[in-house]
Amino acid sequence: MKLGVFTKRQSVTRHLGRIEGDVVIDLGPGDSLNPVMSEGLSLGDGREAPVSEVQWQLPFDVADYVDFYSSLEHATNMGRMFRPDQEPLTPNWRRLPIGYHGRAGTVVVSGTEIRRPHGQRKSGDFGPSQKLDFELELGFVIGRPSRLGEPVPVERALEHVFGAVLVNDWSARDIQAFEYVPLGPFLGKSFATSISPWVTTLDELSSTGGVDQEPEPLDYLKIGSFAYDVPLEVELNGEVVSRTNARNLYWNVAQQIAHLTSNGASLRTGDLLATGTISGPGERERGSLIELTWNEGPFLQDGDEVVLRGEPLGEVRGRIVL
Amino acid sequence: MKLGVFTKRQSVTRHLGRIEGDVVIDLGPGDSLNPVMSEGLSLGDGREAPVSEVQWQLPFDVADYVDFYSSLEHATNMGRMFRPDQEPLTPNWRRLPIGYHGRAGTVVVSGTEIRRPHGQRKSGDFGPSQKLDFELELGFVIGRPSRLGEPVPVERALEHVFGAVLVNDWSARDIQAFEYVPLGPFLGKSFATSISPWVTTLDELSSTGGVDQEPEPLDYLKIGSFAYDVPLEVELNGEVVSRTNARNLYWNVAQQIAHLTSNGASLRTGDLLATGTISGPGERERGSLIELTWNEGPFLQDGDEVVLRGEPLGEVRGRIVL
Repeated sequence: MKLGVFTKRQSVTRHLGRIEGDVVIDLGPGDSLNPVMSEGLSLGDGREAPVSEVQWQLPFDVADYVDFYSSLEHATNMGRMFRPDQEPLTPNWRRLPIGYHGRAGTVVVSGTEIRRPHGQRKSGDFGPSQKLDFELELGFVIGRPSRLGEPVPVERALEHVFGAVLVNDWSARDIQAFEYVPLGPFLGKSFATSISPWVTTLDELSSTGGVDQEPEPLDYLKIGSFAYDVPLEVELNGEVVSRTNARNLYWNVAQQIAHLTSNGASLRTGDLLATGTISGPGERERGSLIELTWNEGPFLQDGDEVVLRGEPLGEVRGRIVL
Repeated sequence: MKLGVFTKRQSVTRHLGRIEGDVVIDLGPGDSLNPVMSEGLSLGDGREAPVSEVQWQLPFDVADYVDFYSSLEHATNMGRMFRPDQEPLTPNWRRLPIGYHGRAGTVVVSGTEIRRPHGQRKSGDFGPSQKLDFELELGFVIGRPSRLGEPVPVERALEHVFGAVLVNDWSARDIQAFEYVPLGPFLGKSFATSISPWVTTLDELSSTGGVDQEPEPLDYLKIGSFAYDVPLEVELNGEVVSRTNARNLYWNVAQQIAHLTSNGASLRTGDLLATGTISGPGERERGSLIELTWNEGPFLQDGDEVVLRGEPLGEVRGRIVL
């Protein structure tokens, strides 16, 4: 099932909708999917309208947004570029799914224009980012919450996942490079994160065996290795610049949830857990411009439009404006 | 004005309340201060009850939680401990107020028991944190929101601040040390953050001249240096172990807001901006055990109770449980 929130032309009233091919079934007024996601599904049918006639809104209220770093190829590429004399992976990378909190308040729906961020591009140099980039990711959306102080066992983690979206975690590489030591990314990411307009329930994704995890994960992260088979592509100004697949990811969402809650942190309905940039082993399977151009650019120009696609999740698009 | 949310004994209905000395004035039913904070104040008077007879709840719905790193003495102490052969401050520290996003969903009200978090204390070693610590901080709460793509000028930043709370940013130093490179703190912080039960409006704080900022801040951060004069103390199991003052902070909240929004990120009502640990120059003016004991401990034991105090903000307390 694919669910979203839409408005009709000439109206500000938001409605919940179920997408069936080119048609949206109007499920009645509603501002967000959160009540549906937390309490389970009991949705009737309603009138139909062509998908092309409605305006999609942010489908759910984002509670906390966590971005992981779960692609071995992406983390390796970044390490090779920025720490060429060292092991590309930090010692923790294979021991736990590294993640950090992003800004929930600036998650926007597909189609929202992305204003080029300003920031300190190096010490004392403030201006528009000259290294604006996309990041190709999946995001998992939490339906059923968990209680504070009660870690979610890895084998029960998927019970908390309502569905998935595509995510473009826009990144300003110059701002990020100057700010991120020692507390991690902040303004290099927080200006906007785009998601696809429909949440696709987990049962619509095909799962497959995941990559071998070596060393074997600790008990709290141990689960039969799996990944979702979602073929992905990045289109820049109408040209496909990268093709990869979510099944390349090293850490899976069950492990991410078990890790996130292992310290007692709770899940809320609407939490968004993104995978981190998804890259594959090939040179045209990389999920960001910094990897595709090995940090030489060109990066995104004003007017550029980026579309990420991955069936059955649909697409997420955004155009850069000054 | 001091405002909070409370329940009376034998009732689950939440009420807004204004605190006047030992008395709370019941302003009627309400789940959080957010509507009051966003739309301005139009609160009448109501019946009075003794403060001791009510149960305080989380006073507002936390939108995004950002933790800064704005005490020169704290950042210097941490640098000296962990990078003894280098300059203690990273090159960005005096150029911008470093910050990162924390977990909004695990912000809890004073009095909530803090369960000792588990995590990877070093590679492959999972168990209860053996370096559990407090952090003494102030937090500023956003009332009036700002628009996406429209940076808030530093000289207008305070118009967006509704008030302040005390913050204990509990930290598991062992978990944090293993996880935090390269994307910053995550599970070492996200298990719980305690705040005082009342939001004190900004007009009740005394401001004073701030410390000299060298080099001079860039234009977008330039404002007459100021700080809030809030005397602070940390009590551990009934004994005061540290005394300091919020006026020691290097970066002020106007600069933090201007920086946070400089890339176009928006503010939402209920955003919580914490200062980072507040330490002063003296050895007994440090705002965390890792600094007070120079990383040798003892850290917090099960049963320990920590109370942070700072008039006019009141107090925030928490006891460690297994």
